[in-house]
Amino acid sequence: MSPRSELDRLRVVLVSPRNPLNIGAAARAMSNFGFLHLRVVNPYELAFREARSAVGAAPLLARAEEFKTLAEAIADCTLVVGTTAVGLRQLQHPVRRLEQAAPLIRKCLATSPVALLFGSEKRGLSNEDLSHCHWLLRIPTREEHRSMNLGQAVAVCLYELARDPQTIAKPEKLVSATAADLERLTSLLVDALRSSGYLKSIPSGSQKRRSAAPTEEKIRRLVRRLRLSETDAELTLGILRQIFWKLGSAKAPSDES
Amino acid sequence: MSPRSELDRLRVVLVSPRNPLNIGAAARAMSNFGFLHLRVVNPYELAFREARSAVGAAPLLARAEEFKTLAEAIADCTLVVGTTAVGLRQLQHPVRRLEQAAPLIRKCLATSPVALLFGSEKRGLSNEDLSHCHWLLRIPTREEHRSMNLGQAVAVCLYELARDPQTIAKPEKLVSATAADLERLTSLLVDALRSSGYLKSIPSGSQKRRSAAPTEEKIRRLVRRLRLSETDAELTLGILRQIFWKLGSAKAPSDES
Repeated sequence: MSPRSELDRLRVVLVSPRNPLNIGAAARAMSNFGFLHLRVVNPYELAFREARSAVGAAPLLARAEEFKTLAEAIADCTLVVGTTAVGLRQLQHPVRRLEQAAPLIRKCLATSPVALLFGSEKRGLSNEDLSHCHWLLRIPTREEHRSMNLGQAVAVCLYELARDPQTIAKPEKLVSATAADLERLTSLLVDALRSSGYLKSIPSGSQKRRSAAPTEEKIRRLVRRLRLSETDAELTLGILRQIFWKLGSAKAPSDES
Repeated sequence: MSPRSELDRLRVVLVSPRNPLNIGAAARAMSNFGFLHLRVVNPYELAFREARSAVGAAPLLARAEEFKTLAEAIADCTLVVGTTAVGLRQLQHPVRRLEQAAPLIRKCLATSPVALLFGSEKRGLSNEDLSHCHWLLRIPTREEHRSMNLGQAVAVCLYELARDPQTIAKPEKLVSATAADLERLTSLLVDALRSSGYLKSIPSGSQKRRSAAPTEEKIRRLVRRLRLSETDAELTLGILRQIFWKLGSAKAPSDES
């Protein structure tokens, strides 16, 4: 996640939102991803009041700033980005996919405030709203179903903005079992399989001894493929010991060798 | 965006959802990002009916499959991933950040069905639910406000999964075991452990029954961590069947229960 101070420069601007649940959801996603400045332009008053007073409302909703016009809401921002579900052709603006837009927005946030605009649930941003934007951002949804729910669109955009571009897959902390552990496990399993009759029990001097090897090797390979951690190897050894002990105390049904 | 056929292998599984708006929002995000298979486990019936009949409900909601148990809902999947808001320390499973989890899930989707689990709005996934998972996924939210709204969490996860990967994941050659195979293996192993005395055998009506659950869940998680291939799962089942049969024919030494 980017340093807090950068995220702190983003202004999420909801233009004419009408549904209190969506306003609440937008605020929740902001709080989840660490963006704390919400601005609301010309909201449906009742909806805004209801969203603010909802149980469990994000504290940033109480501090949200309300504006009569979009121009006032974005006055201090050096970059204004509108969100749209519309395809490229109908628009007068450059449209960037979210993945491509995010690094540009982050770069700007490093030094100055950026506004990210979301239109009303029904109509999105108007042409007048769009004319205030430097460029537009599109979440890459399916042709067949482009338009996202407002709260979900906010969540996805903020997730991508907070996404750490440096994230490197860290090695897993698990300690793998040693070869010695695995061999102990193999021997015990082979013994248990002999006792249980799954493997034929063959005297060590026998001619047949050789033909048993492939099966043992099959078991050995199986045990290696499990990629057991140290802890799981111990757990499995304990299980096998108990089973083997129990098998040993079994009544020999008939000589299968 | 990945080819449609791959996305088509994801099963989004909502476990015990209670709010029709959240069910609807999850379905809408699925439709936005091109994931069309929704499964619902033990939903609050009224909520599920209401979500299905809502105006503008995504068509995939009408085709959603309903299951009584999680085991049934994930039976055909070779990878089962649970979502969680909880920090790393309290969990028994490996937890991966969404950005790191997505390539692994996509890799598996190239060849076989994957289940992505979301818990109920209030409690998330239970320990029993989690024990069915191979590993867990966490959306990187703020420490101070980890828990996301269900519909928004679904949207963010699916956005990341549909995100255009820079590199094309090569299909794994091995076919992984299905959840049904793994559950068969788990049951048989638990039975064998009861027979062998490793687990205490507790009558199903007993008060003590409840305290046996954590051990069963421990065994279930162990089996999931093995990442068995289809072939190895069969091999292991054969081994366990034989051992179990032999244990059954064993002379009871003393009553340990």
